Amino acid sequence: MSLINLDHISANPLRPEVQEAMIAAIRRNYGNPSCPHQLGDEAREALDRAREAVARLINAASPREIVFTSGGTESINHAIKGVASARADKGRRIVASNIEHNAVLKTLRRLKMSGWEIASAPVDEYGRVNPEDIAAAITDNTILVSVMHSNNEIGTIQPIKEIAQITREKKIAFHTDAVASTGVTPIDVQELGVDLLSFAANQFCGPSGVGGLYVRKGTSLWPLIDGGLQENNRRAGTENLVGIIGMGAAAELASKEIESRSRHTAGLKKKLTEGLKERIDAIRINGHPEFCLPNLVSVSIAYIEGESIVLMLDQEGVLASTKSACASGSLRSSHVLSSIGIDWADAQGTLVITFGQDNTEADIDRFLDVLCESVETLRKMSPLYAKARQK
Amino acid sequence: MSLINLDHISANPLRPEVQEAMIAAIRRNYGNPSCPHQLGDEAREALDRAREAVARLINAASPREIVFTSGGTESINHAIKGVASARADKGRRIVASNIEHNAVLKTLRRLKMSGWEIASAPVDEYGRVNPEDIAAAITDNTILVSVMHSNNEIGTIQPIKEIAQITREKKIAFHTDAVASTGVTPIDVQELGVDLLSFAANQFCGPSGVGGLYVRKGTSLWPLIDGGLQENNRRAGTENLVGIIGMGAAAELASKEIESRSRHTAGLKKKLTEGLKERIDAIRINGHPEFCLPNLVSVSIAYIEGESIVLMLDQEGVLASTKSACASGSLRSSHVLSSIGIDWADAQGTLVITFGQDNTEADIDRFLDVLCESVETLRKMSPLYAKARQK
Repeated sequence: MSLINLDHISANPLRPEVQEAMIAAIRRNYGNPSCPHQLGDEAREALDRAREAVARLINAASPREIVFTSGGTESINHAIKGVASARADKGRRIVASNIEHNAVLKTLRRLKMSGWEIASAPVDEYGRVNPEDIAAAITDNTILVSVMHSNNEIGTIQPIKEIAQITREKKIAFHTDAVASTGVTPIDVQELGVDLLSFAANQFCGPSGVGGLYVRKGTSLWPLIDGGLQENNRRAGTENLVGIIGMGAAAELASKEIESRSRHTAGLKKKLTEGLKERIDAIRINGHPEFCLPNLVSVSIAYIEGESIVLMLDQEGVLASTKSACASGSLRSSHVLSSIGIDWADAQGTLVITFGQDNTEADIDRFLDVLCESVETLRKMSPLYAKARQK
Repeated sequence: MSLINLDHISANPLRPEVQEAMIAAIRRNYGNPSCPHQLGDEAREALDRAREAVARLINAASPREIVFTSGGTESINHAIKGVASARADKGRRIVASNIEHNAVLKTLRRLKMSGWEIASAPVDEYGRVNPEDIAAAITDNTILVSVMHSNNEIGTIQPIKEIAQITREKKIAFHTDAVASTGVTPIDVQELGVDLLSFAANQFCGPSGVGGLYVRKGTSLWPLIDGGLQENNRRAGTENLVGIIGMGAAAELASKEIESRSRHTAGLKKKLTEGLKERIDAIRINGHPEFCLPNLVSVSIAYIEGESIVLMLDQEGVLASTKSACASGSLRSSHVLSSIGIDWADAQGTLVITFGQDNTEADIDRFLDVLCESVETLRKMSPLYAKARQK
């Protein structure tokens, strides 16, 4: 039985071109880019090429604004802790939305333990922040705003450009976690006007454990990792060259294909959303109807438990998820769903479906068949559902 | 012309077995270890196998004591900043040796900017710390000692076990930067008695940009990277699985071969040291004659400039180095050499030669020939050398 992957946000397969680039790098056996001799020259060139490809993907003004990291989580930690440390003398308050990824939330919680004040802006029923709420939360001692570009559980895309206008006016640094967006939907850091933007290669079919942080020229930022002079003195440590070369290849593909990728997944999303509404009652599609990732569908299905559905789907070779993979292992209900007003019971019945280029319309049909069957089985056992049907 | 790599500490080629393991991982296209479905299971198993191999290499009591990181520099930052944050209420003083790697020194400098007191213990002419000096530097508010296992520029191995006895007695955390040692010379964390030990895969023919931190059970440590629950909640972020699998394969090989590797390089070291003494006058071999890495020779050659020699060697296809690759780009003289009493002029004429398994006795002969010729050429142009010869 061949697997149907509808959990691309957790596990995006490497594209064949990326695989080949990484395998060639392994066989080439590059040296250390910091070496002053021949082995270093080649490695430096490979590093530069990858940096240029990544800079193009997000339209950075210069490749020097890209810092390679070990992934989205490191980028986010670097951005938030780095600005906090660099600007601590200017103020000790940070503003974020209340539906940020755990990497942001836990980083902020860590700073709170060291005396920082964290303000959190609400979102509407679609998970969207109102820029006015961000403006209202900014006080004289606020030094950083962090609002995600798109949400990894419901897909809602935030009004980043509007928020950036506010932060620029107030001379406050602005970071956006664009991990779920980069390579999925077009990103242009110059148009967005952000100072810092985090991204990860696995979201655009590159390797996991590799990512980057865009740092607008002139942004005050301490390194998270101190030591050698690598990455323009912003991030010490010998580079993960194989991974970075993989990310470079993935970025090049993503730049070329971003429109067609978006179209492909948006088509699947439309088909799935309509199918869900047609075939299952008592559901809610989460996220903004317009400002939303093209590859993500979040659906709350009443009277069932999402974890049970995921296991039933898994047995049928269909991979889906209930929440962020980074939160798996935790039994707590999603803070994102509660922020958009979904009650605890419905949150338990939420599935997150994320598409990739390898998905087809037939995958959606198969998924819907298995899902309907599983939901029916589970609801048959639910006295609450039976009661609701009698009304 | 085939290259002779005598700079393995900067650029260690991947072993064929490691290449094959990484390529197989790329082709296998693993999922995310945090996924609750099938793709996650396979990835988790691969991750566990690598962790066990690494734990065996350093004889950790449990694989759970290993935290995978993006390399030695991150491990060092994690250890030092993590203990500093976790134990800040107990005291704000850290003791280190004055010949630590830049990753340690710059991390300590960063903490100093945030009000920490940093005490630094001297070394003798061989670069060795006296444990009594560490004991003397420890005050009531000291919470961490960090002394490297071996020095990356001169190879001297420190009395780690003796220092650990002191820190244990005083209930102070002890971190050792074992990046230059792990996989090169036997490491046994239980015998050493350290609480934290940093290592990097590229030092034992694994990929660069991958490393680990040994954290003895019960050690108080904050994460450097906050977010998801990965790495037993010690290091958030989706894992660099391809790199980690490579490190696992490299660790397995290193465990098997550590004795023969040590013997092989020690033989080359003996030949090179004798050749240098025989063929070039006015030199000094740096580092401890007994407690020293078997794969490293540091030689200070009077009346020449190391950078010129490195370029001349490079043209002849022989790769060597003057200092840590992480310090390349910096024009400052080595703090390690000045700490062992080498004056500025001699420090400028210092070469660091590091062997790997691929080196042969013929490589040493070729290196000595090219080196002697280059030294002669440079010294012919040196009025200081001419003057010294007349004496």
